[in-house]
Amino acid sequence: MKRSVFYLSDQTGLTAELLGQTLLSQFESIDFITQTLPYIDSEKKVLEAVDLINRNAQENGTKPILFSTLVQPELKAILHNSQSLMLDVFEHFIAPLEQAFQIHSTHRVGKPHSSENKEAYDNRIQAVNYALNTDDGLSIKQYAKADIILLGVSRSGKTPTALYLAMQFGIQAANYPITEDDLENHELPTWAEQFKDKLFGLKIEAHRLHEIRTERRANSPYTSLQQCEFEVKHIHKLYVREDIPTIDTTIRSIEEIATKIIAKTNLKR
Amino acid sequence: MKRSVFYLSDQTGLTAELLGQTLLSQFESIDFITQTLPYIDSEKKVLEAVDLINRNAQENGTKPILFSTLVQPELKAILHNSQSLMLDVFEHFIAPLEQAFQIHSTHRVGKPHSSENKEAYDNRIQAVNYALNTDDGLSIKQYAKADIILLGVSRSGKTPTALYLAMQFGIQAANYPITEDDLENHELPTWAEQFKDKLFGLKIEAHRLHEIRTERRANSPYTSLQQCEFEVKHIHKLYVREDIPTIDTTIRSIEEIATKIIAKTNLKR
Repeated sequence: MKRSVFYLSDQTGLTAELLGQTLLSQFESIDFITQTLPYIDSEKKVLEAVDLINRNAQENGTKPILFSTLVQPELKAILHNSQSLMLDVFEHFIAPLEQAFQIHSTHRVGKPHSSENKEAYDNRIQAVNYALNTDDGLSIKQYAKADIILLGVSRSGKTPTALYLAMQFGIQAANYPITEDDLENHELPTWAEQFKDKLFGLKIEAHRLHEIRTERRANSPYTSLQQCEFEVKHIHKLYVREDIPTIDTTIRSIEEIATKIIAKTNLKR
Repeated sequence: MKRSVFYLSDQTGLTAELLGQTLLSQFESIDFITQTLPYIDSEKKVLEAVDLINRNAQENGTKPILFSTLVQPELKAILHNSQSLMLDVFEHFIAPLEQAFQIHSTHRVGKPHSSENKEAYDNRIQAVNYALNTDDGLSIKQYAKADIILLGVSRSGKTPTALYLAMQFGIQAANYPITEDDLENHELPTWAEQFKDKLFGLKIEAHRLHEIRTERRANSPYTSLQQCEFEVKHIHKLYVREDIPTIDTTIRSIEEIATKIIAKTNLKR
């Protein structure tokens, strides 16, 4: 079973997309064909969107699902005439909020991203730069400024996790690769003692690591299942011995890894 | 006026946060104190959350706002007894979807991130690696694989934009810094001719560029307002002369820059 889905917004469309994905994940048996229509902020653009939606409805013989975060009443009124199952994200929640606050909402096109306070935004960009500058063991001298230092074997997800923590939450995350040498010495690198309370270990299953490394660099000794099993076994022992908190990245998305790390530490999101 | 807000989820909490931020941005006069409670997936954890919410209500003398994306009916029932204005994201939208699809939702804890198809997820990670490998003019030989090549003067937002395009949308974005030498020659770098249809220019106002550069490296000739004005003036001329599509990054967030770039090109989100 297939269904068309439109995410429509007067801004980026990210809220409609994320809400829609969350809800539609409850219907696993359906194959959703999605399309995002962002920056629909004029009568002309809404009319074009309605036309697109109506053509889709005719072609498929069913009404597409429409998640809308449109704010302006006059634009929403046009959209309500489309051949769709329209789920108006704004309308349903804004009324109880207005009542609770005893004030009217501005009903102006929302700017959740750009209106966030400038300091928080600059922190996020600064954190992205920090993650890049301290990627893969670079600039250990900047570790005093780290909110967290991610450890893991090569290709266990350190870099994307550090970048996501920075981009989404403004958290300064360094990351350091634990190498075969470290593992054979059965010791943490010498710098680590000083920052013991910032360390966080990424775990991964050997077969998945083998798969990831093979995609990247086939037929090198570094990718062999044997090598992956060796590294994984020893780094997990190291985490236990040094009492380092960990998370298994094997079947988790970057979003889950990052939010679980925050939940397991004292970091602020 | 201050109000407490809780975002509560059995998963990452990202959907509740983003939806809440979007809605609350409509009430600019209120100062919201927010707290996210992710991975609330057992009776014990829900009871703890209710306790936290109720204490907040008592301390402040007003009910906090509660955005919940909880899925399981028995856990939601407990939450409904909290001293809050509970906005149940799940409940409101799932019923019309069930009716439209003529099937029941699974009512299982949602996994919008991890259940997305593995190929799409691997693409995102691969795109992040691509952005890192081609950051700031590195690896021009990989440009054939680029979906887009961002141009701009130093500190105009190229790197965070490329990373966001990769992380959020799986788009392979390279970025190349246009230097003073390029600008004095009034020419694009020699490699650019071959990839003309992939070029996208970032613009920025000189005063903002000056501000950003000063934060990073005070009192260098590179940061002077005069230098910034020179670079900005000449790169904008270059974009016009070479007919390169552009976006002004001065007052836009990374989310807006990235989604506007996609809307202006043929990239798929």
